[in-house]
Amino acid sequence: MSILIKNVFLPEDCGYGDGSVNVLIDGAVIGKITKDEIKADEVIDGRGHLLIPGFYNTHCHSAMTALRGYADDLPLGPWLFGKILPAEEHLTAKVVRSASELAIAEMIRGGVVSFSDMYFFMDETARAAIDSGIKLNIARGYTSDDNTAPENDFRFDETVELIRNFHGAADGRIKVDMCIHGEYTNADRAMRRVAEYAVDNGLGLQIHVSETTDEHKGAIERRGMTPMQYFESIGALKAGLCAAHCVKVSDEDIALMAKYGVSASHNPTSNMKLGSGLMPIRKMLDAGVNVSLGTDGAASNNNLDLLKEMQFAALIHKGFHENPTEITARECFKIATENGARAQGRANCGRLAEGCRADLALIDTDALNNIPLYDTYSALAYSVRSTDVRMTAVDGKILYLDGEFKTLDIEKIKYDAKRTLKNFFI
Amino acid sequence: MSILIKNVFLPEDCGYGDGSVNVLIDGAVIGKITKDEIKADEVIDGRGHLLIPGFYNTHCHSAMTALRGYADDLPLGPWLFGKILPAEEHLTAKVVRSASELAIAEMIRGGVVSFSDMYFFMDETARAAIDSGIKLNIARGYTSDDNTAPENDFRFDETVELIRNFHGAADGRIKVDMCIHGEYTNADRAMRRVAEYAVDNGLGLQIHVSETTDEHKGAIERRGMTPMQYFESIGALKAGLCAAHCVKVSDEDIALMAKYGVSASHNPTSNMKLGSGLMPIRKMLDAGVNVSLGTDGAASNNNLDLLKEMQFAALIHKGFHENPTEITARECFKIATENGARAQGRANCGRLAEGCRADLALIDTDALNNIPLYDTYSALAYSVRSTDVRMTAVDGKILYLDGEFKTLDIEKIKYDAKRTLKNFFI
Repeated sequence: MSILIKNVFLPEDCGYGDGSVNVLIDGAVIGKITKDEIKADEVIDGRGHLLIPGFYNTHCHSAMTALRGYADDLPLGPWLFGKILPAEEHLTAKVVRSASELAIAEMIRGGVVSFSDMYFFMDETARAAIDSGIKLNIARGYTSDDNTAPENDFRFDETVELIRNFHGAADGRIKVDMCIHGEYTNADRAMRRVAEYAVDNGLGLQIHVSETTDEHKGAIERRGMTPMQYFESIGALKAGLCAAHCVKVSDEDIALMAKYGVSASHNPTSNMKLGSGLMPIRKMLDAGVNVSLGTDGAASNNNLDLLKEMQFAALIHKGFHENPTEITARECFKIATENGARAQGRANCGRLAEGCRADLALIDTDALNNIPLYDTYSALAYSVRSTDVRMTAVDGKILYLDGEFKTLDIEKIKYDAKRTLKNFFI
Repeated sequence: MSILIKNVFLPEDCGYGDGSVNVLIDGAVIGKITKDEIKADEVIDGRGHLLIPGFYNTHCHSAMTALRGYADDLPLGPWLFGKILPAEEHLTAKVVRSASELAIAEMIRGGVVSFSDMYFFMDETARAAIDSGIKLNIARGYTSDDNTAPENDFRFDETVELIRNFHGAADGRIKVDMCIHGEYTNADRAMRRVAEYAVDNGLGLQIHVSETTDEHKGAIERRGMTPMQYFESIGALKAGLCAAHCVKVSDEDIALMAKYGVSASHNPTSNMKLGSGLMPIRKMLDAGVNVSLGTDGAASNNNLDLLKEMQFAALIHKGFHENPTEITARECFKIATENGARAQGRANCGRLAEGCRADLALIDTDALNNIPLYDTYSALAYSVRSTDVRMTAVDGKILYLDGEFKTLDIEKIKYDAKRTLKNFFI
């Protein structure tokens, strides 16, 4: 099966270009990028459109769409302990399935080709991702305490089970990562076991790291080390670690991240909304850290719109540091695409190049908000909206085109979500 | 002419409500808000939709859509003096007309019912607004120097001409404000004359105030006063002043604003993108200042999306101050609607109440990103997108409904804009 997307322009054209680029999708990969005429089984006319690699959302709790808008404008304590955790106790497999489907649909609609997830009932999320065609790095939310011995550690056992059932599934679209929810929600012995298992088995690892001042300072009090230093001390930085948030990381933490190749998942909307603060993105990029982007869950965002997240990142660092050159449009675009694929341990993804996986989004530059178009990177970072996405494709398969979801029964998903989620915890 | 929008829910329903509210538009005003059956000449079924007052954009340079994405990620000096000002020298009436039409279309599409504008060739922008049906507070960009005597002050004369031709036009939709571009771009004598004319004639006044540290400190060096203190000293605070940006205002400046009833136009995206900093919104609100919202021009945003602007405001203040209760969703919504109308000196606008002007937007809550819906204010501040706007109405006239612009030839506007704007300064 081959698909030709013809007459597009590419980000590096920096403007409309001549709109004469033809991109051949050959099976799951980009077979050819050329201005020559080319034949294919199926042809999509991309005239007036910008073709880009799709977006990689490297930190999400997709089933938290169930709690979108449920608890906003509250201090962290009342938000978490008064609202979110009590609601989560009512979560069922059915709710997680419905909320995951809703989340996946929102992401595909907005050009997201892959997401990372850390939550519960993860086999439901995995099956929803498999059916939808999206890519997923899944991790069973992992917490522990001093009583969590290997023989009663059901969360660890469920992770191993998840790996057995889903790691590498759907031609590699599904990857199972290990998880440590955070330094502050786990016991030393349990975290060492997770880290060792991840390293021994060459697995990815998802951890919330230094999201808030309380967490960061708390670790120093508890262990005499920052969270990142602690994770280094137990060997976790040798796994394929993607550290979410990293708002309060120190210069020494950043040096450790660079040394070990740790990826960061920057979640600017969530960090603003919950009052956590601003990740030191310039320092990280200058140190060579692989910075990627995440939406976090819809309870703290409240969208799963990685393009909006990219634009938010492109703006707030300039404002905080009162420096309009703090980060460029082009850097933000790379963070949202190529760096995200790398953070998920996905080779040959996130770039428009022959031989790379065909994870693509086609952007309508004829929308009112994109006229005129002088520079494609500026348009992507500052004016394009996720509703300007005309097509999303993953591994060469078209998941969304011209308003139609090709793999999802969207009306059923919306109906189920409204019925299932609205009052699930009442 | 009467229009019934039936089966909607309202913001204060805080959730879906029972979706049984019927709103009658009677001519230019909201005639009735009721759950009773009601008859009208025309009926719009609003089932599953949220009806809100439309958005008021209180600071914009609409014709700067011509420069959308033309110069990004630059320091203020090279941005302004190397790119924007040289390009503006090539502006013509034709370019301003085309760019204004494009801007107005983008705003109507996003539920904006009224905007304020400060720029050149303003009769072109005024005519575009009249034809489109949107409301407009227009001001001729005003700069001066020590050589600007009354007898050679063509900008002042053009303002008076603009007032004669357009103030109160289109049943009051068009208002002409006086303008002082800024304290740093004008001579004392000229500013005193503008302020006096505005006060004597009961006119609105648009000024950029304390947008940057350089401007704010510069005024103190030049005049021994902050910009706001200077404007008080020349009587400008007694006009209907809407002060744009106010990023660097002091506590004393805020007290002056409250004392004189000065409105602020908060432009968070522009202030972040240009590295200006963050307006002290909490202090202003607590002091009783009428804070409204503006997009600024598309060269420093790069959208004219007041809903996105509202969401940006709802997030960044929490993040900067590391306080999730810094500002609430409900406050942000009031800032974007009711306060904006007040900043523009428009009585009986910006609220959903019988007798108020029917300046309305209808929001599709069935979009993926709005499911589930627990709280309408949260949805508006954190998840609704401007593309979820199904209808925009101004003074009871429907300007946009279900994808169709009722007063604009949108394909012609896009065609003209692409042709006229793309290379207007080359």
